[in-house]
Amino acid sequence: MKILVAPNALKGSVSAIEAAERIERGLKRSGLEMVLDLMPIADGGDDTMEVLTASGGTIHEVQVLDPLGRPITAHFGILADGRTAVVEMARASGLKLLEPSERNPLKTSTYGTGQLIAAAVKNGARRVIVGIGGSATNDGGVGCAIALGLRVLDETGMEVPGEGGSLARARRMDTEHMMPELRDTEIMIACDVDNPLLGPRGASAVFGPQKGATPEQVTELEANLSHFFGLVAQTLGTDVRHRPCAGAAGGLGGGLMTFLGGRPRSGIDLVLDYLNFQTRVSGIDLVITAEGRMDVQTLGGKGPLGIAKRAWEHGVPTIALAGSIGEGENQLVAAGFRGIFPIVPGPMSLEEAMKRGGELLESAAERVGRLLALSRKLT
Amino acid sequence: MKILVAPNALKGSVSAIEAAERIERGLKRSGLEMVLDLMPIADGGDDTMEVLTASGGTIHEVQVLDPLGRPITAHFGILADGRTAVVEMARASGLKLLEPSERNPLKTSTYGTGQLIAAAVKNGARRVIVGIGGSATNDGGVGCAIALGLRVLDETGMEVPGEGGSLARARRMDTEHMMPELRDTEIMIACDVDNPLLGPRGASAVFGPQKGATPEQVTELEANLSHFFGLVAQTLGTDVRHRPCAGAAGGLGGGLMTFLGGRPRSGIDLVLDYLNFQTRVSGIDLVITAEGRMDVQTLGGKGPLGIAKRAWEHGVPTIALAGSIGEGENQLVAAGFRGIFPIVPGPMSLEEAMKRGGELLESAAERVGRLLALSRKLT
Repeated sequence: MKILVAPNALKGSVSAIEAAERIERGLKRSGLEMVLDLMPIADGGDDTMEVLTASGGTIHEVQVLDPLGRPITAHFGILADGRTAVVEMARASGLKLLEPSERNPLKTSTYGTGQLIAAAVKNGARRVIVGIGGSATNDGGVGCAIALGLRVLDETGMEVPGEGGSLARARRMDTEHMMPELRDTEIMIACDVDNPLLGPRGASAVFGPQKGATPEQVTELEANLSHFFGLVAQTLGTDVRHRPCAGAAGGLGGGLMTFLGGRPRSGIDLVLDYLNFQTRVSGIDLVITAEGRMDVQTLGGKGPLGIAKRAWEHGVPTIALAGSIGEGENQLVAAGFRGIFPIVPGPMSLEEAMKRGGELLESAAERVGRLLALSRKLT
Repeated sequence: MKILVAPNALKGSVSAIEAAERIERGLKRSGLEMVLDLMPIADGGDDTMEVLTASGGTIHEVQVLDPLGRPITAHFGILADGRTAVVEMARASGLKLLEPSERNPLKTSTYGTGQLIAAAVKNGARRVIVGIGGSATNDGGVGCAIALGLRVLDETGMEVPGEGGSLARARRMDTEHMMPELRDTEIMIACDVDNPLLGPRGASAVFGPQKGATPEQVTELEANLSHFFGLVAQTLGTDVRHRPCAGAAGGLGGGLMTFLGGRPRSGIDLVLDYLNFQTRVSGIDLVITAEGRMDVQTLGGKGPLGIAKRAWEHGVPTIALAGSIGEGENQLVAAGFRGIFPIVPGPMSLEEAMKRGGELLESAAERVGRLLALSRKLT
């Protein structure tokens, strides 16, 4: 039996790479005769850099500014081809970099993400995959663009720094001084939300509150993005305001489209392409994936369901190991999973399950392997 | 695929009969093509009566005395053959019939269990299976024998009532007035402990404390059993003191051997025989059992492991669905289970898992069925 082991991270518990190794170990103990291919996956969020650089890529360290302008060390990856980079915005501009009391999207900027992209391009990358989950910002990606050479000026000719609260002051902008290499650089936005930039489904209204914005601040952020991208439409003739994904990551999606010609694509599809899923799945009998929690939200189309659907296009069934199965198991099975198996061995607190995640995943893989081995003998 | 569905009860959560129905429902939803035979099992403890009378037997109600001599309603079963009865001692003389404050093995008696046996025999039974788990007593089965006609007298010629504290007074006994039908009646003791009557592994020392005996009372109970069964050996020429199972249920095992010619046998083996396991397992591809908790204690040989071993003698593999898997999963697999699958879908309290036991079991059976169905297509 040829098995492609393609787990996501179990968020907060087991990385995608460890998950793949744990599943391998459990399956090997089960007595199932098999050939394994380990292909840990990610959906553009956490672990995307590790997963894409796992086979032959390199990881690079850069000093950048965090969402509040403080210097930090962050990383980007260069894939094995030497020309494709992977940047996770959350490493430079993520909510996880702030204390809860520091959250304030009027003050935060994606400047550090721009620095990461600049470093990747200087390193020779001519294609940059930007993962945009987990942002602390609502700056429309203006900070990012400024780090790459955009100039934004107020009515007195002073530079506008770019954080979410500063955009109201913008009156003019020019792209003349942007990094010339960017003209030959393809920017791919790993994006799994289709929110537009503005309005009730836009960046400020939907994601602002979880970044610390009060209702009044949401109104201000919305007005600022509306003003700025109106000015963009007038000045540059580019209008991304209603494009899906423009509202992702506080409008970073829209900013990358506007200033870098970025194109959005499903994170899992991007990752699977770069991992050569198409080639690796052929001749495979079974895909085993994993995920922290699987429920009706999983039906939204991110990571695990993406791989199940893609595998199914090649006639290969997928089963999943899940830290927790919530409502919607039957719908998930109808949507593409041929089986979902919980990893907990019995009643247990979430805290304990997360602490023991790797070990539980390994045992669950062993159980599944045993049943597969048994079933083959029965037939 | 021919599957024998043979679950135990998930104690405190799902009866064996409901467990079988739940597993059936889950498997049917899984899309697995199969033929099912439902055979809920028990090990001589809870549910033994229901399980043995499930196909064509009858259940009978009797007024008996509880462990403290208070009238209660209890039940015994007559199997489909009309000649075999099943009596669970716990229904007349069980710890579950007492408030914690009432526990006192000096005062409790198995008289009610004797009444149940008498009623079964009057009903035509010539074979009685006595399940002896969960007793509140330490009377050596003397109360039970008295209910069936044994006379025990003290030095003044007064009758000794038989509870654990009264046995020291016994000086004489006669069996002349015991129910004559008992001579033609076979008594089978469903017993899964091999404790002798006396000593450090005996009834009083091992089981006395959990029935409410203080250390001083344990000493008294031990002396009483030692005195009484010494008298038995002198008077009747029968000595069961060192026989395995004599110490089960506060010495009821020993009493049934002494006064009724009872023979001990593993509860699960007895139950499997009466359920025609031997016949039903032939031609079966897979046995699916279930149990509340499976861990190193399960290796002791009770219920679920018993069926796995018996099935394996017929070349049939067994998998188990477990409310909870503790330490020892690998040993259990080595000992006979080809796979053990937890029923909880994720982190959850024991209380919730027990409350939702039936539903969780059904979903777990569906998952296993799906993987079996998938695996058959892969081969």
